[in-house]
Formats: sequence, C-alpha cells, structure tokens
Amino acid sequence: MAKPEGWRLNPTAYPVSIRCDTRFQDLDVNRHLNNVAFAALFENARVQLHTEAKMLEGRASGERTMVAAVEINYLGEGSFPDPVTIMSGTGEVRNSSWTVLQAMFQGERCIATCDTVVVCRANNAALPIREDLRAALEALRVNR
Amino acid sequence: MAKPEGWRLNPTAYPVSIRCDTRFQDLDVNRHLNNVAFAALFENARVQLHTEAKMLEGRASGERTMVAAVEINYLGEGSFPDPVTIMSGTGEVRNSSWTVLQAMFQGERCIATCDTVVVCRANNAALPIREDLRAALEALRVNR
Amino acid sequence: MAKPEGWRLNPTAYPVSIRCDTRFQDLDVNRHLNNVAFAALFENARVQLHTEAKMLEGRASGERTMVAAVEINYLGEGSFPDPVTIMSGTGEVRNSSWTVLQAMFQGERCIATCDTVVVCRANNAALPIREDLRAALEALRVNR
Amino acid sequence: MAKPEGWRLNPTAYPVSIRCDTRFQDLDVNRHLNNVAFAALFENARVQLHTEAKMLEGRASGERTMVAAVEINYLGEGSFPDPVTIMSGTGEVRNSSWTVLQAMFQGERCIATCDTVVVCRANNAALPIREDLRAALEALRVNR
Repeated sequence: MAKPEGWRLNPTAYPVSIRCDTRFQDLDVNRHLNNVAFAALFENARVQLHTEAKMLEGRASGERTMVAAVEINYLGEGSFPDPVTIMSGTGEVRNSSWTVLQAMFQGERCIATCDTVVVCRANNAALPIREDLRAALEALRVNR
Repeated sequence: MAKPEGWRLNPTAYPVSIRCDTRFQDLDVNRHLNNVAFAALFENARVQLHTEAKMLEGRASGERTMVAAVEINYLGEGSFPDPVTIMSGTGEVRNSSWTVLQAMFQGERCIATCDTVVVCRANNAALPIREDLRAALEALRVNR
Repeated sequence: MAKPEGWRLNPTAYPVSIRCDTRFQDLDVNRHLNNVAFAALFENARVQLHTEAKMLEGRASGERTMVAAVEINYLGEGSFPDPVTIMSGTGEVRNSSWTVLQAMFQGERCIATCDTVVVCRANNAALPIREDLRAALEALRVNR
Repeated sequence: MAKPEGWRLNPTAYPVSIRCDTRFQDLDVNRHLNNVAFAALFENARVQLHTEAKMLEGRASGERTMVAAVEINYLGEGSFPDPVTIMSGTGEVRNSSWTVLQAMFQGERCIATCDTVVVCRANNAALPIREDLRAALEALRVNR
C-alpha cells in the first residue's frame, strides 16, 4: 500500500461530486469519523457513480457486479457534524473489471482516498463488460 | 492492489483467532454480507489483537495510534447467520508504524483478507513505537 | 412509555435464546454500547425468531411483513467485548399483526427490553396472518 | 404502543429541522430504509437538538445524560437516495428527565415518529436538570 499520488488529492481530477451529511453514528470512541464510516461513505458515492453509469440497466441474465478489492488511505481526521464531499471517477476499464477512484474532502482538506476494483461476473466466471456500460464507465474517467 | 499471496489464506499462519457472529444488519440488498460489514468485522478483530498486545496500556502522554490505510481483498461471498472466524497477526513492525494482517473464514472458506497500516503519533508527528509495545507486536507476528 | 413489568426481566419467560457477540462498532463516544446498536441486536434476534417460525415460507403472492413500531427500554449500560444474550418470544397474535417481546442480558443483568409490532400486508392493505404462521407464532409465546 | 396523534405528523409542530442524506448502507434486503437506519437518523437529529440546547456545556462534575427509552412508529417506507428531513422538539420537561419528540419526512410524507426519554444522572442517581438546560429545553418545546 503506497501513499496516494499527488493528483489524487485534487478535486478537479474527478468528474462526479457527491455531498453527504455525516452522522453521530460515524463517530467512534475517539470522537472522529471512524475508519469504517469512511468505507460506508465511499460505498455510498460509488453506488451513485454506478447509477450515473446506468450499471444496473440492460443487464444480461445472471450478470452480477461485485467489489473485489477496496483500498482506503486515511490522510486526515474527519469531524462531525460537518458534511463530506466525495469526488469519484473511473480509472482503468479492463475486460471484465474496472477501478473506481475516489477522494473525500471536508472543507478544503482531502481526508482520504479510495481505490475499488469492481468485477463483472456470470455463472461463477468473469463476464466481459457490456459495450454500453464500458462506454459509460469510460466517459466517467478521472482526469489525471 | 495485487491478489493476496497463497499463504494468506492459510489459517495456521496467524497467531490470533476471533469468532464473531454475523448480523442481519450485515446484509445488503444482494442478501450477502456487505463489503462494509467485512470492514467492521476486521476492525473488531484488530481491536482485540491490539488489546492482546496491551496497546493502550503504559501510553505516553499525547500518544495516539491511528489507522493510516486499509486494503481488503474479497475472495468469496459471506452469508448470514453463520458466524465468521477472523485470524490476525502482525506483519512488519517499523519505527513508528506496523501492519496488521488478517483473513476471514466462513466454515473452511477464506472469504477475505485485510492489510492495515497503523501509525503511532504524538503532537502531529510520527512517534517511535514504545519498546514494550514493539515486543508485544513482534510476538504476534504471522508465521508465513 | 411505561417501565417494563417485572416479569419482562426474567429470562425464563421467553422461549428463544440467541447469543450475539458485541463489536467495536457498537460503542459510541461514551464507550458503552450505543442505543442504536441495541436496536440492531434486537432486530437480529427478531429475524432469527421469525426464521424459527418459518415466516418467509409458504408466503402468499404479494404478502409482506413489516415492522410497524419498536419500543426499547434501556435498563443498564452494555459493555464491549462481552457478548449479549437476547431472549425472545411472541406476545399477542392479532388478526393481521403480532408483537415480539424481547429482553437483552449481559451476564446476569437485564440491560434492555424491546417490544415490536409486526404487521402483515398485501396490496397496501392489512392481510390476515396465514394459519400455519399463526400456529407457529403462538407456539413461541412468552410465558409470563 | 398507540398510533401517534395527528398533530405529530405536522412539520410545523416542531421548532428544529434537520435534513440528512440517506446512504446505501441504510437499505436492507427489502430495498427500503431499514428500521434500524431510522433509529440512527433520529439519534443524529436528537444529538443536534441537544447541541442547540447546549446540553454538554456547563455540566456539573459527574453529570451524565442517557437515553432511557425510545419508541419509533413506522408510518411509511423510506427510499434511497432521497434525503430525509427530521423535525424535532421537546415534550414534557420533568425534574430529572425530558422527552424528545420527532417526526421524519421524505418529501411531503411523514414516514415515522420517534419519542425518546432522556434522563439526567450523577453517581448512579437521578440528578435534577440544571436551570439553564431546563430553560433551553423548554424553549425548544413542540407547538401542538
């Protein structure tokens, strides 16, 4: 796990922006946003990115998409009740998987980055990404 | 994010074992254990590993430990209401940080691995790990 | 909201017992089990009670069951990492709804009770409880 | 548990309004906001009401406030990703406890109400509410 590259902390590198309120439940005994709460917030923004790519529309029978790996780098502490803004975009789009690249901001501070590998499967085997989904994912590429 | 090495899926590689019940809240709309629930389960086992290392005892004033990075590789789907067993150990112990290496099992299946970087800090700067904590962390090393 | 009656704190009043591990995520800034974590633990035991009553088997088309009301009385603080035991049973079984009565224990202490009203519906209207489900629910009655 | 009275569904009855985003984590296997997620959203708005009443400022040594009871009535299903608005106010303010009354809206629909009893304690005994806190709580009364 290497430190995120510098461009990852630049909000203008990502095409999609989602604001999300923080909650009292996000705090842990240290009174900061808990690291698992970060994971839930990144997931929430990822779902909205995939909605924008119409990932669930026009699915082949048995087609499924699954999270294969998540890596979060924590760069600063998050506080409550300030909202967070999560910037998201796609990275590499491969044959049957793609990467979602994200960064979380509170005010001007980048407090975390997240890299997620999503895989497309059917019948317990890798399934090539549909062409319309591929086009949508490529249109949401980060601009590094 | 590379696939976990083969030895990571072997429960005997890890010194500490924690069983944890799954909950209805861990399910998402796909009726499998949600990827954020995996993060919460790994965190729970990490806290218990750190308790075993007496991480919070004998702390210097202002000493803090924080999660700097978490990488989870999802290898199989988890189901409810079966419990999970999480195996944990430490990896490299550096000057002011260490790695926790974990694997989650449901029955015989390894359904995920997790690598966490924990850093020791005081006054907004890296703090060398106390000698007693270093010894405890090294005694909990994985056996690869 | 009246205090629970005395018999509600007696574990032998309930036919079903479920042990559940607590998690670090259940703690809040006060280092006790958070009141929302209690709600999740009671829900988990309720799902298992309903599984025992085979609530989801033999369902009519469009039949749904929904939580209409939940009342939790907090009687003592809960701690981590001790597990909890949740005792559950049914109370009144009416035409199209029933009550689940529960109590949570940590060691010998009863730390909370929970009353839940579950309703059976189809096509946006109340649906009488199927006879086999009614029999199963009545067989799980509390013994006050 | 009686149905909430009609005035409880009227947003103008409550002095404090808080908007909160919903999250993918709030969904359960039925694809609606889960009943425990409602509890977390009401808690979040309650914390913000108490912040407005400066509950934690000027505390006597050992003074604590705890949730003694929560009753939620579920009136309609909630959906994601629409935000919710939670209206809050205080009900009766007694010697050492008070009630928080809330209602959750999605669009124009009231989807739930929540009644919470909060108690003030010190040294394991009831503690009379401080006069400044009492005045603040009374200023936030619902207007039925």
